[in-house]
Amino acid sequence: LKAAIDGDRKALAAAGNEGVLAIVAATHAGMSTDEFAAFVKRWLATAKHPRFGRRYTELVFAPMVELLAYLRANGFRTFIVSGGGTEFMRAFAEQAYGIPPWQVIGSRIELKSERRGQEPVLVRLPKIAFIDDGPGKPVGIEEHIGARPVFAAGNSDGDLEMLEWTTAAGGARMGLLVHHTDAGREWAYDRASHVGKLERALDEAPERGWIVVDMKRDWKRVYAFDPVVP
Amino acid sequence: LKAAIDGDRKALAAAGNEGVLAIVAATHAGMSTDEFAAFVKRWLATAKHPRFGRRYTELVFAPMVELLAYLRANGFRTFIVSGGGTEFMRAFAEQAYGIPPWQVIGSRIELKSERRGQEPVLVRLPKIAFIDDGPGKPVGIEEHIGARPVFAAGNSDGDLEMLEWTTAAGGARMGLLVHHTDAGREWAYDRASHVGKLERALDEAPERGWIVVDMKRDWKRVYAFDPVVP
Repeated sequence: LKAAIDGDRKALAAAGNEGVLAIVAATHAGMSTDEFAAFVKRWLATAKHPRFGRRYTELVFAPMVELLAYLRANGFRTFIVSGGGTEFMRAFAEQAYGIPPWQVIGSRIELKSERRGQEPVLVRLPKIAFIDDGPGKPVGIEEHIGARPVFAAGNSDGDLEMLEWTTAAGGARMGLLVHHTDAGREWAYDRASHVGKLERALDEAPERGWIVVDMKRDWKRVYAFDPVVP
Repeated sequence: LKAAIDGDRKALAAAGNEGVLAIVAATHAGMSTDEFAAFVKRWLATAKHPRFGRRYTELVFAPMVELLAYLRANGFRTFIVSGGGTEFMRAFAEQAYGIPPWQVIGSRIELKSERRGQEPVLVRLPKIAFIDDGPGKPVGIEEHIGARPVFAAGNSDGDLEMLEWTTAAGGARMGLLVHHTDAGREWAYDRASHVGKLERALDEAPERGWIVVDMKRDWKRVYAFDPVVP
């Protein structure tokens, strides 16, 4: 929490998903779910990314949005399974990815049914309920979906167990890893990164048969606003 | 647990949802989710209800199945929100109610990602993770769906907070209570019952505008195998 108050990005990055969640849990406790959703929407409508000068909702990977649409057009049901906060992602997932709130699985803080006068409300407590990352991802998938995926895509070691769970079962299965290799249009990182470290999953990809996407080589554009590379 | 081993139905009934869940958590711990699903399916395929001599999957209320189909035909998305175990209900909800596993919300025991050799498995732990009953129902709805329902139906005080959460919001809203009044075709109980007690929700129904269904008076049949009362 101190790192966040001091604006210490490096310490924040080192704290990882769980650290950031603990901060959100602490700072937004006592808010109702409606108030939190309104707060997130206000932030998304105003905040701009310091490097790109774009709203965060514009910073979604265009090829992944196309892939989701392609899967849905072919009869697949698409879910987001992220280490980020569920209520945060639901505020933009439908518009950005075409994925409705009930198909978004993420980390969660505890909620409590309360009354404010006659009005029932759900209040956010300062406590993490579930971390949807690493070994938590198959758990989140089972709890929420109750069926084993046939296809999963990830971009960090936090996706390793989800990819294993998806592709180790019988029948036609597919795993995909997005490798951040493009420092020009996005970022280039993998094994040494504090955020989104990609090491074990990259090593396991060949034996598991997962497809590794090299963003720099394979993607004609990263964001929808990028010029298309022929 | 002692009551279950002794076959003491009265003590089991008094233990309520949470007691039954604790028994299931204790007796089925260590099973993988696949093993538990297979176990439930075997039980559903063989067990018969002592009073009706029918499989439990036949003992679903025909008018509620019709209502669900009617709602879906008119563009609504239907969910089950039950105090029962999620994984148990998912084993039959699609066939019995037309509701797929990812739209079933229930109580949950803790799961853990593990490996058995090279094989990733999800193992059931002897610990309750979430009780989807009473004040837990709005929490389960928000965690799973992320949107406030416009219609909810229930049949006990365990549904009170869900009905309040659903109908207290603005716009067109509807709440429905099924009152078990038919000792001949099913059972008659409400305020004095150990199981499925219906008292506070019945008292609150008039002021909240909830429709109360009198099963004996309003339903031409209870189960699909009942003769239709003209």
